[in-house]
Amino acid sequence: MWGGRFAEGPSAIMREINASIPFDKALWRQDIAGSRAHVAMLAAQDIVGAEDARAIDEGLQTIAAEYERDGVPEDWDLEDIHMTVESRLAELVGPVAGRLHTARSRNDQVATDFRLWMREAMLRAEAGIEALQRALVGRAQEHAETIMPGFTHLQTAQPVTLGHHLLAYYEMTRRDRSRFADARARMDECPLGSAALAGTGFPIDREATARALDFARPTRNSLDAVSDRDFAMDYLAAASQCAIHLSRLAEELIIWASQPFGFVRMPDTLSTGSSIMPQKKNPDAAELVRGHAGRIIGCATALMVTMKGLPLAYSKDMQDDKPPVFEAAGLLDLCLAAAAGMIADSRFEVARMRQAAELGYATATDLADWLVREADIPFREAHHITGTAVRLAESRGVALDALSLDEFKGIDSRIDERVFAALSVDASVAARASYGGTAPDQVRQRVAEARSELGMDE
Amino acid sequence: MWGGRFAEGPSAIMREINASIPFDKALWRQDIAGSRAHVAMLAAQDIVGAEDARAIDEGLQTIAAEYERDGVPEDWDLEDIHMTVESRLAELVGPVAGRLHTARSRNDQVATDFRLWMREAMLRAEAGIEALQRALVGRAQEHAETIMPGFTHLQTAQPVTLGHHLLAYYEMTRRDRSRFADARARMDECPLGSAALAGTGFPIDREATARALDFARPTRNSLDAVSDRDFAMDYLAAASQCAIHLSRLAEELIIWASQPFGFVRMPDTLSTGSSIMPQKKNPDAAELVRGHAGRIIGCATALMVTMKGLPLAYSKDMQDDKPPVFEAAGLLDLCLAAAAGMIADSRFEVARMRQAAELGYATATDLADWLVREADIPFREAHHITGTAVRLAESRGVALDALSLDEFKGIDSRIDERVFAALSVDASVAARASYGGTAPDQVRQRVAEARSELGMDE
Amino acid sequence: MWGGRFAEGPSAIMREINASIPFDKALWRQDIAGSRAHVAMLAAQDIVGAEDARAIDEGLQTIAAEYERDGVPEDWDLEDIHMTVESRLAELVGPVAGRLHTARSRNDQVATDFRLWMREAMLRAEAGIEALQRALVGRAQEHAETIMPGFTHLQTAQPVTLGHHLLAYYEMTRRDRSRFADARARMDECPLGSAALAGTGFPIDREATARALDFARPTRNSLDAVSDRDFAMDYLAAASQCAIHLSRLAEELIIWASQPFGFVRMPDTLSTGSSIMPQKKNPDAAELVRGHAGRIIGCATALMVTMKGLPLAYSKDMQDDKPPVFEAAGLLDLCLAAAAGMIADSRFEVARMRQAAELGYATATDLADWLVREADIPFREAHHITGTAVRLAESRGVALDALSLDEFKGIDSRIDERVFAALSVDASVAARASYGGTAPDQVRQRVAEARSELGMDE
Amino acid sequence: MWGGRFAEGPSAIMREINASIPFDKALWRQDIAGSRAHVAMLAAQDIVGAEDARAIDEGLQTIAAEYERDGVPEDWDLEDIHMTVESRLAELVGPVAGRLHTARSRNDQVATDFRLWMREAMLRAEAGIEALQRALVGRAQEHAETIMPGFTHLQTAQPVTLGHHLLAYYEMTRRDRSRFADARARMDECPLGSAALAGTGFPIDREATARALDFARPTRNSLDAVSDRDFAMDYLAAASQCAIHLSRLAEELIIWASQPFGFVRMPDTLSTGSSIMPQKKNPDAAELVRGHAGRIIGCATALMVTMKGLPLAYSKDMQDDKPPVFEAAGLLDLCLAAAAGMIADSRFEVARMRQAAELGYATATDLADWLVREADIPFREAHHITGTAVRLAESRGVALDALSLDEFKGIDSRIDERVFAALSVDASVAARASYGGTAPDQVRQRVAEARSELGMDE
Repeated sequence: MWGGRFAEGPSAIMREINASIPFDKALWRQDIAGSRAHVAMLAAQDIVGAEDARAIDEGLQTIAAEYERDGVPEDWDLEDIHMTVESRLAELVGPVAGRLHTARSRNDQVATDFRLWMREAMLRAEAGIEALQRALVGRAQEHAETIMPGFTHLQTAQPVTLGHHLLAYYEMTRRDRSRFADARARMDECPLGSAALAGTGFPIDREATARALDFARPTRNSLDAVSDRDFAMDYLAAASQCAIHLSRLAEELIIWASQPFGFVRMPDTLSTGSSIMPQKKNPDAAELVRGHAGRIIGCATALMVTMKGLPLAYSKDMQDDKPPVFEAAGLLDLCLAAAAGMIADSRFEVARMRQAAELGYATATDLADWLVREADIPFREAHHITGTAVRLAESRGVALDALSLDEFKGIDSRIDERVFAALSVDASVAARASYGGTAPDQVRQRVAEARSELGMDE
Repeated sequence: MWGGRFAEGPSAIMREINASIPFDKALWRQDIAGSRAHVAMLAAQDIVGAEDARAIDEGLQTIAAEYERDGVPEDWDLEDIHMTVESRLAELVGPVAGRLHTARSRNDQVATDFRLWMREAMLRAEAGIEALQRALVGRAQEHAETIMPGFTHLQTAQPVTLGHHLLAYYEMTRRDRSRFADARARMDECPLGSAALAGTGFPIDREATARALDFARPTRNSLDAVSDRDFAMDYLAAASQCAIHLSRLAEELIIWASQPFGFVRMPDTLSTGSSIMPQKKNPDAAELVRGHAGRIIGCATALMVTMKGLPLAYSKDMQDDKPPVFEAAGLLDLCLAAAAGMIADSRFEVARMRQAAELGYATATDLADWLVREADIPFREAHHITGTAVRLAESRGVALDALSLDEFKGIDSRIDERVFAALSVDASVAARASYGGTAPDQVRQRVAEARSELGMDE
Repeated sequence: MWGGRFAEGPSAIMREINASIPFDKALWRQDIAGSRAHVAMLAAQDIVGAEDARAIDEGLQTIAAEYERDGVPEDWDLEDIHMTVESRLAELVGPVAGRLHTARSRNDQVATDFRLWMREAMLRAEAGIEALQRALVGRAQEHAETIMPGFTHLQTAQPVTLGHHLLAYYEMTRRDRSRFADARARMDECPLGSAALAGTGFPIDREATARALDFARPTRNSLDAVSDRDFAMDYLAAASQCAIHLSRLAEELIIWASQPFGFVRMPDTLSTGSSIMPQKKNPDAAELVRGHAGRIIGCATALMVTMKGLPLAYSKDMQDDKPPVFEAAGLLDLCLAAAAGMIADSRFEVARMRQAAELGYATATDLADWLVREADIPFREAHHITGTAVRLAESRGVALDALSLDEFKGIDSRIDERVFAALSVDASVAARASYGGTAPDQVRQRVAEARSELGMDE
Repeated sequence: MWGGRFAEGPSAIMREINASIPFDKALWRQDIAGSRAHVAMLAAQDIVGAEDARAIDEGLQTIAAEYERDGVPEDWDLEDIHMTVESRLAELVGPVAGRLHTARSRNDQVATDFRLWMREAMLRAEAGIEALQRALVGRAQEHAETIMPGFTHLQTAQPVTLGHHLLAYYEMTRRDRSRFADARARMDECPLGSAALAGTGFPIDREATARALDFARPTRNSLDAVSDRDFAMDYLAAASQCAIHLSRLAEELIIWASQPFGFVRMPDTLSTGSSIMPQKKNPDAAELVRGHAGRIIGCATALMVTMKGLPLAYSKDMQDDKPPVFEAAGLLDLCLAAAAGMIADSRFEVARMRQAAELGYATATDLADWLVREADIPFREAHHITGTAVRLAESRGVALDALSLDEFKGIDSRIDERVFAALSVDASVAARASYGGTAPDQVRQRVAEARSELGMDE
C-alpha cells in the first residue's frame, strides 16, 4: 500500500509491532462513518463523480453489515482498521475504491475515528455516572435520618447521617460529569480534511464533513489536528479522577463490611466466596473497583509519557494512544456499574451504625460548642475543658453523657444540666443545620435539589 | 493545642514528619484572608461580639504586615500555617483570639486556603499561556510565508509554512487555557463553614463568607468539602497537558537548533555554554522545559496515588497535597515564561528551512494529487505512480522536479508539462488552501482570528 | 564561565530556570571529595604540579570548613554547586584553581557527585530498614502466641498470631534491603574521568580516582557514564516498593486503631489531636507514611518520564534528576523512622484481637480440614458441608462451636464429637504448623532466624 | 464453588468485573505444573492416596494436552484459570478431583503460578537483551574507527567513534540484564503450601514442592507469601528501565534517520511508507519502541498504585496485577527484538557522519587541551582562549583548523604550528584513549571484553 518504493517487505517482528488491527478494529463503526461522510462531501464538491461515490458508499455499507455480522478480520498485513476497510472495499467495488482516499490521509482519518469513539466513551461515562447518582440519591433519601459515626483519620469524629455521607459522593460525581462534559466540548472539532499534516489542494468542504459527523466545527490548524491527542488525555484525566472517587467509596464499603465494623452487608450478587474458607463473603466488586483505579491511573500515565516530547506532526508513537484508552474505558464502565449496584443493593446495618456513633465520644465537639454558646467561653478554652471531660469519661470507661452533673461542674462550674440535651447523637446531627451540614433537614433539601437535577421526579 | 487529653508530646520524628509549616507557609495570605472573612461573618451573625471581632481583625492585619515584612516564622511545634497565625494572634490580642476558631475547623480552613491559592495559580497559568500565545501569533504573522519542511515521523513529508507550524501551538495552548478556565469554574465553591466534617450548629452565613472570598457559592456537602482535592488534581492534570505541549515545542527547538538542522538559533539569553567545550551554545532552556514536563507529570501522579482509596472525610495523607502542587506550579510558570522567551527571541534560519524543504521529495504528494486532479486517476494508483517517480529520482540523486518530462512520461504517459508547476515548494504550500491548511492565506486568516481573540489589535 | 563566545548574558527567566544551586548544594560534600580525589590523581600523574595540587587541595578543605560552618551560598549566577565551589576556590588560591578542571567536565563531575550521594542514601535506607526490622522482630517475639483474626479481603478468614503477621513485614523489608544492596552493587563504578562525553587525552588514572572514592572500578564507557541515571532510578524503584510496603503497614494500623476495631493504641508521641474535636487521637504518623508512598511513587514516575527518549550524551533535562531523588530520600527516611516508632511503641489490645478472632467463623476452614482428615471426604465436598454449617450458625446468631453435635450430625452424619477440639482459635493456630505457617512454634523459629540475621543476639 | 452459603449468584456486572479467565488463562501451563507438583507431594505425604493422585495427575496431563491443542475455554462462571482447570478435572476424573485442593488455596496457587510465569518472562527478557547486545557489539566492532559527532544537548560536542556510541548501549543493557537476574534471585522462593494466608494443618512438605518447581526454597511467611507481588513490581521496574534505554536508542535512530542528519538508513523491513506521501520511509519500528516505553512505564505505575495501601493478606485488588505485567512483557519482548533488528540491519552513512563531525567546531576542546598541555595554561584560561578562536572562525564561516597561524597567534601568542595536528577529528578521537574513552583502541578493547562476556568467540 506504500507504493513502489520499498524493495523489501516488513520483517516478522515489524509486522507484529506495527499491526494495530488487533486493537483498532474497535474503531470500525467510526471509520466507516467517517469514510461515508468524506465520500459524500467529495461527491458534493465534484471531486469524485456521483456514481463512484454511490458505489463507494454502498460498498462501505456492505462492509458495515459484514463486520456487524462476522466481526472484523485481523490481517496483520493490512496493519490497521483503515487499510482493512479500504482493502475490503477494493474487493467489493474495484479500483474506484481508490478514490475514497482523495484529499485525506490516515493521519486525519484516525484522528477523526478516535474522536468519534472517544465522544461515545464520554457519553457512556456520563450515563454511568448518572445511574450511580440516582442510586446514591435514592439511598440518601432513605437514610436522611440514619445516624452513623462520621470519621476523620478513620477515628470517630462526630455523628453524621448516612444520607449526608452518600450525598458527598453525589457531589464528587457531579464534578466528574462536568469534567467529561467539558472534555466533550473541548474536542468538538472535526480533524477530517487536515490530510497528512498540511491540508489539501482539493476544494473540500470541511464544514460539511464536520456537520455530517456531528461536530461543531472543523479544527483550525491541520498540523495540530493530526498531532493532537488532548481529547484522549482529557478522557483519561477525567476517568482517573472518577475512578479515584469510586476507589474511596470502595475503600469505605470494604471497611464497613468487615466484621468489626459490620455497617453494611454487600449484596450476594456482588460478592464472592472463598475456595478454602467456606464462611467467607468477600466484597470483591468493591475491591476490584478500588484496584481498577490503579490501572486507570496507569493508563493516564502511559499516554502522557508517550506524548511527552513528540515533535510535530504525527509520529508512530501515537499508535500507542488507543490501548490505554480502550482499557481505561472498559474498566471505568465496569467500575461505575459495580458502584451503582453496590449502592443500590447493599443493606446498611443501621443499628450497628448508630451504636458505633454513640461510642467514641463523638459528641465532644457539641460539648465544646455548648460551652461557647451558652457560657460565652472562647472556643479554644472550651476545647480544652472538653478534652478534660473526655479524659475523665475515658478513664471511667463511660460515655460522655454518663458523667454526672457534679463531675461536669468539677471540671468547669459554668456547666449546667442543660448540657445533657446537647450530648445525644440525635441532638448533635440535628444541630448541624448550617448550609451543607449533616442535619436531616439539610439532607432532605439536598436530596430534593439532586432529584431535580437528575430529573428523578419527572 | 489539642486540649488536655494527651499524656505525652510528639516525638522528634513526629514533629518532623507532621510539620507542614515548611511548605504551607506559602498559604499565609490566603489563611489570613479566610480568617478575616470568617470573623467578619461571625460578627455579623452575632456569634462573636463586634469588639472582639475588631480586635481579631486588627490582629490579623498586623500579622499580615509582619509576614510581608519578615516572612513567616517556621516553628515545627505549631505544625502548620493555621496554628502559626492563630498562636501569633493570641500573643497580639490575648484569649479573645480563641473566638476566631468558632464554627470552623482546620479541615475547612485549609480547604479554603488551598482553593484560594489554587485559583491564583490557575489565573497565573492562564496569563502565562496568553503571553506565550502572543509570541506565537506574532512570529506566525512574521513567517506566514516562510517555507520549511513539514515532518511526520521526523521524515520530510510536505512543505509547510513556519507560521502554520507555530499556530499549531496556538491551538494547543488555547485548549490549555480552556482547561484551566474549566477547572476554575468547577472549583468556584467555598468550603468555609463545613467545619470538621459535619457542618456546625452555630448560625453561620456561608453565603456571606463565600461572597467575601469571591466564590460563586458555598459548597453543598460538608463531608465532601473537607475531603475534596479535585481542584488540585484538575490543576495538575491541566498543568501536565500544558507541559506536554511545551515539551513538544522544546523537543522541536532542540532538534532545530542542532547543527545538522540549523533551523533556529536560540537567543544567547536562553542558552548556556559548556565548562569544557568552548564552542558550545546549548539550548538549556528548551531542555529544562522538556525535562520539567516529566516532573510535572510526576506531581500529578503523586497526588492521584495519594488520594486513591482514602476513606472520608479528612485524612492526614491529604497533607501531601500541597508539595506536588506547589512544585508543579513553580515549574509550569517557569516553563511558560521560558517558552515565550524562546519563541519571541529565537532567530529562524529561513534559508536553511527552505533548502531542507526542497530536499526529501516533499512535493511527492503534489504529484499524486496532480495525477488525480488532472488525469482523473484514482488516488491509490496515483500514489503508486508517484512512488515510482520518487524511486527514479532517488536513484539518480536528484529532486523530483529535476526529472525530465520524458522520464515522467516513461513512468506514466498521462503526465504532461503542466506537472512541473505543481512540484515547487511554493506551489505546494499555496495549493493547500483548504480550511486550516498551510497556505499563507490560511495562516493570515488564522493569525487575524487569533489576534482578535487575544485582543492584540486593541 | 563559558568563555568568550556569548554576546549576551542569561535573561532573568534563564537564570531562574537554569540555576540548580538551590537544590544541588546538597551535593557539596561529594563535590569536594570528588575534586580532592581528582586533583590528587592529576598530581600523581604529573598533569598538575605538586605545589599547585597542594594549593588546590588546601583550598578545597577550607571551602569544606566554610560550608560546614556557614552553609553553601546560593548565587544563581554560579548556576550549580560545581561552579560555586570552583569560583570560591579561585578567590582563595587564584588562577591555579583553573587547573582543577583539567581532564574532567561538569558532566562526569556531577555523575560522580550524585553517585556518591546516592550511595549514602542507599546505606541510610538500609539502616532505616534494619531499625524497623528489629522493632518488628522484637514485637513478633513478644506476640508469638497472641491470637488475632487473619483477614483476606478485610474479611475475617482464619485466626493467626500477631507475631506471624508482624513477621510478614519482616519478609517484605528483607526484600527491600536486598533491593538497595543490589542497586549499590550495580552502581559501584566511578564515572570520573569520562570528561564531557568522550574521555580525555590527558594521561589520567581512573583506577586511582575510583579507588579513592571507594568505587570497585571505573565505568567502562564514557558516553554511558555521563548519560546514565540508572542508579537514581534504581533507588527510586527500591524506595517506591519499600514505601508501598510501609503504606500497607500504615493502612493496617489506621484500620486497627479505629474504634470499631480497637486492635491497637498508637503512642501519643506519634499521634495528634484535633483543633475542633477534643476527644480525637489521630494516627497522623501512619497516615503520613501512607500518603508519602504516593509522593515517592510520583518521584519515581517523574524521573522515568524525564529520562525517557533522551538522546546521548548529557542533556540538560537530566538536571531534573535530583529534586525527585532528594525529595523521595527525605520522605523515605522519615517513613522508616516513623514506622519503626509505631511498631516499637504501639500497644496491641490483645483481648480485642482475640475476641474478634473468635467471631466471624474464622475456624470454618478447620472444620473443612477436619472432615478431609478424619472422614476422608474430598476437600471440595468438605468445603460445601462447612458452608452449610456456617449458614446454620449464622442464622442462629451463634459461633460455629456453639452448634450442637446433633446439629452437626444433621448436616453430615460423619461428624463426631472430636470436631469441637478443632474449632477453637487456639487449636486452629497451633494446627497451622506447616513451614512458614502461623503456629506459635513456627513464629518462634522464624524469630530466631531473624534475630540471627540481624545480629540481635550478639 | 463457594459452598452453600450464598443465596444468590453473581449479577451480570459481577460476572464481568470478577472474571479473570480472559487474561489469567495465560497461566495455564504454570497452573497445571503447580497442581502436578502439589498432588505428587500430597501423595508422597500420604495426604492423598496414591491411586487418587495418579488419577488426578493423568487428568491434569489430559487437560494440558487439550489446552495445547484447542486453547483454554473462557467460561466466566468459572472465574479464573484455577477453577477452569479444576472443573475440567472433575469432569475427567470425578469427585476425586476435589482432593487436589487439599492443603492449598487459590491464594497460594495463583502466587505460585504467577511467579513461574514471571520467571519465564524474566529469562525471556534476558535472552532478548543478549540478542540485542550481540548486535550492538558486532556493529561496534565494525565501526570502531567510524567517526561521528558526539552530542551533548544535541549540539555537536566532540568527535566520537560510532563503535563507542553503540557500546554505551551495551553498558546500559548489561545493567538491564543484571536487574532481571537480581529480580529472579529475589523471587526464588515458592509460596505453594501457604494456603489461604496462615499455612495449613496438613503435614505437607514444602521443600518438595519448591524443589519440584525449581525454586531455591519455600517462602518463609505464609501471610507474606499470598500478599506479595514484589516480583511483579521488580519485573516492571526492570522492564521500565530497559524500555527507557531502548527509547533513547530509538530517539537517536529517529533523529539520525531524518533528512537533515542522514546518519542512518533504517532497513526496509523495519520501516513503513505513507498512505498519502509516496516518498516516505518512516522509522515506525523505532517510534513504536519509543512509544511503548510510555506504556510500560504506565504498567509499572498501575501496579504500584494498585498495591499501595492494601491491608494483608490477599485482597481482590491484586487480581489487577496480571494485565499490566502481561501487557508490559509483550511490549518489552517486541521492543527488544525490534531494537536488535534495527541495530543489526541499519546502514550507517559513515560519510555523512564524518562530514557532520568536521563541522560544528567539535575539536575546540582539543585546542583547549593542547593549550593546557603544551603551553601550561590553566584549563579555565585555555577554555576562554578557545572560545575566542571559535568566535573568530564562526564569524568568518570557516572551521577551526582553517584559521591561519597568524590568526591563532593574534588570539594567543603561545599557540604554534603544532596546534593544527590536534584539530583533526582523527587526532581528536585517537587522543581520547583514557580508560573508557572513545579512541578506536579503547573501543576494540571493550569489544573484546564484551565478546568474551557474551561468549561470542566460543
